[in-house]
Amino acid sequence: MPYYISGVTAEHTSLVARTPEEFKSQNDVDMLTGYRALEVDPERHTVKIRRLATGQESASSYSKLLITTGADAIVPPVEGTGLTGVFTLRKLADSVRLKDYIVDASPSRAVIVGAGPIGLEMCEAFLALGIGVTLIEAAPQVMPLIEPGLASMVQGRLAEEGVECVLGQVVTGIAGDAKGTVREVETAGGRFAADIVLMAIGVRPATGLAEGAGVELGARGAIRVDGGMRTSIEDIYAAGDCATTTHAMTGREVWLPLGSTSRKQGRAAADSMYGPGAEFGGVQGTAVVKCLDLTVGRTGLSEKESADAGHEPVTIEMEAESLLDYYPDGGTMSLVMVADRPTGRVLGAQLVGRISSVAEKRLDILAVAIGAGLTADDLQYLDLAYAPPYSAAVDVPIIAGNLMVGRLKR
Amino acid sequence: MPYYISGVTAEHTSLVARTPEEFKSQNDVDMLTGYRALEVDPERHTVKIRRLATGQESASSYSKLLITTGADAIVPPVEGTGLTGVFTLRKLADSVRLKDYIVDASPSRAVIVGAGPIGLEMCEAFLALGIGVTLIEAAPQVMPLIEPGLASMVQGRLAEEGVECVLGQVVTGIAGDAKGTVREVETAGGRFAADIVLMAIGVRPATGLAEGAGVELGARGAIRVDGGMRTSIEDIYAAGDCATTTHAMTGREVWLPLGSTSRKQGRAAADSMYGPGAEFGGVQGTAVVKCLDLTVGRTGLSEKESADAGHEPVTIEMEAESLLDYYPDGGTMSLVMVADRPTGRVLGAQLVGRISSVAEKRLDILAVAIGAGLTADDLQYLDLAYAPPYSAAVDVPIIAGNLMVGRLKR
Repeated sequence: MPYYISGVTAEHTSLVARTPEEFKSQNDVDMLTGYRALEVDPERHTVKIRRLATGQESASSYSKLLITTGADAIVPPVEGTGLTGVFTLRKLADSVRLKDYIVDASPSRAVIVGAGPIGLEMCEAFLALGIGVTLIEAAPQVMPLIEPGLASMVQGRLAEEGVECVLGQVVTGIAGDAKGTVREVETAGGRFAADIVLMAIGVRPATGLAEGAGVELGARGAIRVDGGMRTSIEDIYAAGDCATTTHAMTGREVWLPLGSTSRKQGRAAADSMYGPGAEFGGVQGTAVVKCLDLTVGRTGLSEKESADAGHEPVTIEMEAESLLDYYPDGGTMSLVMVADRPTGRVLGAQLVGRISSVAEKRLDILAVAIGAGLTADDLQYLDLAYAPPYSAAVDVPIIAGNLMVGRLKR
Repeated sequence: MPYYISGVTAEHTSLVARTPEEFKSQNDVDMLTGYRALEVDPERHTVKIRRLATGQESASSYSKLLITTGADAIVPPVEGTGLTGVFTLRKLADSVRLKDYIVDASPSRAVIVGAGPIGLEMCEAFLALGIGVTLIEAAPQVMPLIEPGLASMVQGRLAEEGVECVLGQVVTGIAGDAKGTVREVETAGGRFAADIVLMAIGVRPATGLAEGAGVELGARGAIRVDGGMRTSIEDIYAAGDCATTTHAMTGREVWLPLGSTSRKQGRAAADSMYGPGAEFGGVQGTAVVKCLDLTVGRTGLSEKESADAGHEPVTIEMEAESLLDYYPDGGTMSLVMVADRPTGRVLGAQLVGRISSVAEKRLDILAVAIGAGLTADDLQYLDLAYAPPYSAAVDVPIIAGNLMVGRLKR
C-alpha cells in the first residue's frame, strides 16, 4: 500500500491478489463479499452470516472452518483520532482513502506515529510526494526491533532527507481546527504541526469471531494454533495475522504477523484440512524493509533475545562491501551477527545496507543458515555463487563466519 | 579480467588483491617476485629457487610448505596457436596483452573457442567493444555444465546480440596471413573469420613442482589434499586451483578450480599449518556467471550427477517473477531443481534469470539449503525476508519447495 500511495504502484486494483471472479474460475471457490460472519456454532458446524446490503441473516454449514480474520490497526486512546486527515493503514480501502485525501487536501506536513516498518515505508512515500515528515516513536530509536547501532544509521539517513525523528515520546492528543481537520500532534515533549497524520503503532489480532466460538487464545491474544493450524476446537482452524505461531529458535509461542508467514500458514492449513501434509515449523523472526535507499533487515534472535532464551550470546559487528572495488555499483552494508558460545551455532543476524549492496541476499543466506542450525565454522565454508558482478570471492556471510570463529576462540 | 578488457574496470592494477609491499606492511610476509621455484627437497625441507633476472640459484628452507601454483590455460594441439592475435586468458599479463592488442589492431571479429564461463564473459566483453563474436564449443550447447533447456535460453540471448554459436565442433586449426596474424579458425563444420581468437577451453592444474617433490596426485591430475590441505608428504600442503577438493554431496574427490574455493582452501591451509582449525568440507559445485543481461548459475548436483551418485532424482522446472507485478523493475527467472525421491532431500538447482531478477539471491538461498541437507518440505517453510521491493510474499525457493512436494507425492 505505501507503494500505491507514493505512485510506484499505479493502480490499487493491482494489489488485489485474486478477485472473487478469479477465485471462482481458477479454484472453484465461492467467495461471498459484502457479508459479515457473525457467529460460529461449533456443535452444529454452522456460521451465521449477514448480508450487509440487505441485513438478511442466514446460516452456512461447514465440515472444516478456517478463520483468517487478520489483524486491526491499533488506534491509541487519545483525543482527536477521529479528526479529518488522521489515518491508519491496514485495509486496501485505507490506502485509497489516504491517497484520495492527499490528492484533495495537498498536505505539506505529515506526522507518522510509529517508526516500525509501516511507518518507515510511509515516510518514504510521503517524502516521494513532497510531504515533509515528523516521525514520533515511543522507543528510543526507529525500528525498535533492530540493534541501536544499526537503527542510528537509518536515523542518520532520515535526517539527511529532512525527516524530524521524535524518539521516546508517545502521542498524548491530536488537535484540529474549527472544521475538524487535523493541525497538531501533541506529546509530552512538544507539539508537532501536521496536516496529515498516520497512526502506525501496530496491530492487534482480530479474534472476535473465534472468541465467540470459544476458541482458545494464545500469545498476544492471537488464536492459538498448532503446526497444522488447528485451534482448540475440532474442525476449526486459523491462519494468518489472527493466529499465533511458534518461534522455531526458542520453541515459544509467539505472534509475529507478517505477509510471508500468513502465506505459509494458509498452505499449512490447507495441507492439514485436506489430508496429511508438512506441519508448519514456525518462524525465526525474519523481516526486511526498504527505507529510502537503505535495506534494513533481521533474522533469528537478537543478542538480548538469545540471552533470554538461555544462550550465551557472542556478537560481532562488521562493515563490508558487496563487490570488490574494481567492479562498479556495489554498496556498503553493516552486519551484526550473534552466535552461541558453547556450540558456535549462529543465532541471529541484522543488516543495514545500501539498496545497491543487495543486503537482502546476505540476509536470506543467513536466514537459511540460521534456520538450518549452522555454526560459525559452517558459515566459513558456505559454497556461495561467486562472480565479480555478484560478490567478492569471499562473500559477507563467509567473512562473518571467519570473524565469529576468531571471536569464539577468545 | 574480462571486465578490465571491456573497460568496466579501468585499471588492471586494481585487479591485484595485494601487492608485495602490502603483503610486507600488512602481514609481514616476504613475497619474492621474479623468482621461480625449481625443486622441492622434502627430506631437507628446502626449495631451490632461481632469480630470473640474474639466473642465480639458491635454496630456501621451510618448516611447512604451501604449494599454490594454480592452473594453466589449455592450448589445443592444433596448428596456428602461435599466430599473432591468438590468446588465452589466465594470468593478469594475458589480459594486458589482449587489451593492448585490441587497442593496437582494432579487431572487428573474434572467435572464442569454449563457451564456458570465461568464454561467455569474454563474449560480453568483445560485444561491449563493438567486436563481433563467433563462439565455438565442442559440446552441443553453451555452458556445458547447465541443463540444455536453460542453456538454450542463453543461446537465444546471444543470438539476439548477433553472436554466432557453433556447437558440437572442435577447432582443427588456425590460419593466418603472410605476416603471421590470425585470419581464420577451422573446424570440421566450417571455417570462421577472425582477427582475434581467444582459446577458453579450460585449464589444467600446474603440478610440476609438486610432482618433482613426489607428491601424490588425484582427480584430474591435481595435487591430492585432505580437508586440512595436507598433501601425501609431511609438511607439504597445497591449495587453490592446483589442488583437489571433496564434493560435499558425493564424498568424491574432484577438481573444480574456482576463485571462491581457492580462498577457502587458503584459509583452511593456514588454519591447518598454524594450529588446529576447521577442516574444509569441500564444495557442492556452486557457480554463477553473468552473460549480457542474464545471470546463469548452478549449485549441487544435476539430474544426471544425482543419478550417477546413486540417488533417484526427481526434477521440477519452473518460471517465476522476482517481484509481484505491482512493484517495478523485477525480472523473470527459470529454475530447474532436483530432489531425491525417497528422502525428499534437495540435491541441486540451476537458474537462468535476467540480471534484474536477482537470480543469484535465489541461487545462494538454495546453495545454503542444499548444503545443509534440507528437504523439499523444509524449503516450503524457509523464513525468507519479504518486502515488496525484494520478493513476492512467497519467494522462488519456497514455490520450488511447494512444487517439489507436490511432485514427490505423485
